Amino acid sequence: MTDPHVLTRQLQKSNDSKIVLLVGDGLGGLPLTPGGKTELESALTPNLDALASRGCLGQTIPVLPGIAPGSGPGHLGLFGYDPLQYQIGRGVLEALGIDFELGPKDVAIRGNFCTIDGAGIITDRRAGRIGSEIGAALCEKLNQIKIPGVEVFVRPVKEYRLVIVFRSEGLGGQVYDTDPQATGKAPLEAVAKSDCSKKTAEICNEFLRQAKEILKNDAPANFLTLRGIDTLPAIPTFQEVYGMKPAAIAVYPMYRGLARLVSMDVLDAGQTLDDQMTCLKAAWNDYDFFFIHFKYTDSTGEDGNFAAKVKRTEELDSCIPKILQLDPTVVIVTGDHSTPSKMKSHSWHPVPVLLSADTCRFDGSTKFGESQCARGGLGTFEAKYLMLQAMAHAGRLEKFGA
Amino acid sequence: MTDPHVLTRQLQKSNDSKIVLLVGDGLGGLPLTPGGKTELESALTPNLDALASRGCLGQTIPVLPGIAPGSGPGHLGLFGYDPLQYQIGRGVLEALGIDFELGPKDVAIRGNFCTIDGAGIITDRRAGRIGSEIGAALCEKLNQIKIPGVEVFVRPVKEYRLVIVFRSEGLGGQVYDTDPQATGKAPLEAVAKSDCSKKTAEICNEFLRQAKEILKNDAPANFLTLRGIDTLPAIPTFQEVYGMKPAAIAVYPMYRGLARLVSMDVLDAGQTLDDQMTCLKAAWNDYDFFFIHFKYTDSTGEDGNFAAKVKRTEELDSCIPKILQLDPTVVIVTGDHSTPSKMKSHSWHPVPVLLSADTCRFDGSTKFGESQCARGGLGTFEAKYLMLQAMAHAGRLEKFGA
Repeated sequence: MTDPHVLTRQLQKSNDSKIVLLVGDGLGGLPLTPGGKTELESALTPNLDALASRGCLGQTIPVLPGIAPGSGPGHLGLFGYDPLQYQIGRGVLEALGIDFELGPKDVAIRGNFCTIDGAGIITDRRAGRIGSEIGAALCEKLNQIKIPGVEVFVRPVKEYRLVIVFRSEGLGGQVYDTDPQATGKAPLEAVAKSDCSKKTAEICNEFLRQAKEILKNDAPANFLTLRGIDTLPAIPTFQEVYGMKPAAIAVYPMYRGLARLVSMDVLDAGQTLDDQMTCLKAAWNDYDFFFIHFKYTDSTGEDGNFAAKVKRTEELDSCIPKILQLDPTVVIVTGDHSTPSKMKSHSWHPVPVLLSADTCRFDGSTKFGESQCARGGLGTFEAKYLMLQAMAHAGRLEKFGA
Repeated sequence: MTDPHVLTRQLQKSNDSKIVLLVGDGLGGLPLTPGGKTELESALTPNLDALASRGCLGQTIPVLPGIAPGSGPGHLGLFGYDPLQYQIGRGVLEALGIDFELGPKDVAIRGNFCTIDGAGIITDRRAGRIGSEIGAALCEKLNQIKIPGVEVFVRPVKEYRLVIVFRSEGLGGQVYDTDPQATGKAPLEAVAKSDCSKKTAEICNEFLRQAKEILKNDAPANFLTLRGIDTLPAIPTFQEVYGMKPAAIAVYPMYRGLARLVSMDVLDAGQTLDDQMTCLKAAWNDYDFFFIHFKYTDSTGEDGNFAAKVKRTEELDSCIPKILQLDPTVVIVTGDHSTPSKMKSHSWHPVPVLLSADTCRFDGSTKFGESQCARGGLGTFEAKYLMLQAMAHAGRLEKFGA
């Protein structure tokens, strides 16, 4: 497994180029019928097509062929971090998803409210799917828990889901889930997988002891289980590995969080793609690299709404002129994975990628779509190598060897 | 280099899907003249072409670009086992090739009958290429050799070639060949490459001592050399790494043996492709995964007979409707390597692959052949990742990361 950062650290050089990475989440799709067009191919995308004609196409493999990635591995790959090397725990991702600013001393945990009976046996692992307001009120109560030497943060996510963060020195993230994964069983004690996480397991158990007392009259949400207990992975900063100052312009917390993982500056992106373009323009002189995230190509795919995904793709297309007005050196348009509306889920299919720069070897592409990408001049390659291409076309990589 | 099994172990899930992997041995070819068609492209393959139109194409690299694999690495790659990580000794392969059921306590050795003179010097390394009946009779005699604490098996292969298996506790497979690789030299003593194989070397030498006595009047086959001494590699089972129950339907012993290496159930395949289809239908409800092996696309290629390879490819095509009648979830048609009749040998050229499933991203393919495969939507990828694609399209892989 070749780590691209071995080379970027060695070969990076500075100049005044600007790179824009525009991510249409879940951009790749599938046709509904044999021989039909995908969402991207069905969309009217005159701006992307013009860009394709001036650039070159290809497709990326987010992790490995056949592997459908979550948002975490999908984005880490785009940022050039090997998603198999840098794995992000579920608790960490959940905390990022609610914009919680995790630090290096934090252990993040995904909590689920549950129902236990008088004997302490779980009767409902999701506490009757309580409403989000109820969940939020209970989190407020749990947030009062005091554990000596530890800062405790309890934040609601949605319905029965919550995030717990413990902040203290020397906390390991290697602790087994306390969720027994079935009703009719008691919640498990928190048990450390290794010695360096024993302190974390003790804190978890003390937290659960107090929580049981606090929640005892709050049935159906009269207890909780802890899952995906983990710390932030040790991950080098984007600026260190590429020598570029990066900015993230993302509306959704999860993607701001993923950008923060690699120490990008997270800008105030507003709420719409127009807001994001305004933000981009305002920040243009302050950064070398811009990650712009557009969520709705994924969410419409997850909904199984082909027509809506087509429409959202056209919306994505419409922002291209505003990006080009700023005269970027390199523009990349791609996804973090495919989300075919036919499958209503993330998928393993390769992801279309478009790269436009003065140094492109034109490949005869005329339309940004999966078919032309499969035959494009960039070929099919692992997503983690996309940043190398971006830097190369920006003139930011020295020759390797003499 | 990423081991796909790290992910399949973690992400596998069960369902009632069925996967068929149809291997046309040595399927890939070459045109005889510039601009001409390959064997596969020359063949009339209406069924494969229809499948290509409903599926997607690509090409696999069996080991690394430029590396022509033997049958062992070729098939291990198809089964998703890294052929560089799992290397199979020549003796083991030879034993598999005669349907010898090797176990974990066995050391397998390829033997060559040879001629030695009165001073013990080799005068013919192949014993005048004695007929197979003579070789078999001599093996019968050697099979009587007794070594305390060791089961000894001696089996003929063909002409001067034989297989010797020692079965005992604690036998290492690290022993140098006793073949000096030249006439005019004496056969070598068996010497262990490492301490844990000293016992094996001693057994080899005791076997050779007795063999010399037994064969002394059997010139030209009055002695033998030992080569490719090895044990079975420690290889995880197919069921463990993929969570699927696999069956092999192969006529030739070598391929049954390779399937047995990864603990596939080896079914009674009969003698013809029709027999194999009958076997497939009968076993359909008992397995999740079917490996079907067709030898003759390779043997005709090895013979340098372009027209015969075309004809055998058409025969392969004719079994497709019988497979489709069973309504498999995923059908893959590919080879373990290329065997261009122009070269009369295995080659390193990429191997055409066709994958058909409801979740295919159609790539505009209309004909199963090397040219369209090189431009297919699956791209060009290492064969060891093909199983990941198969599992993904069968819905047998969870998402990676959140």
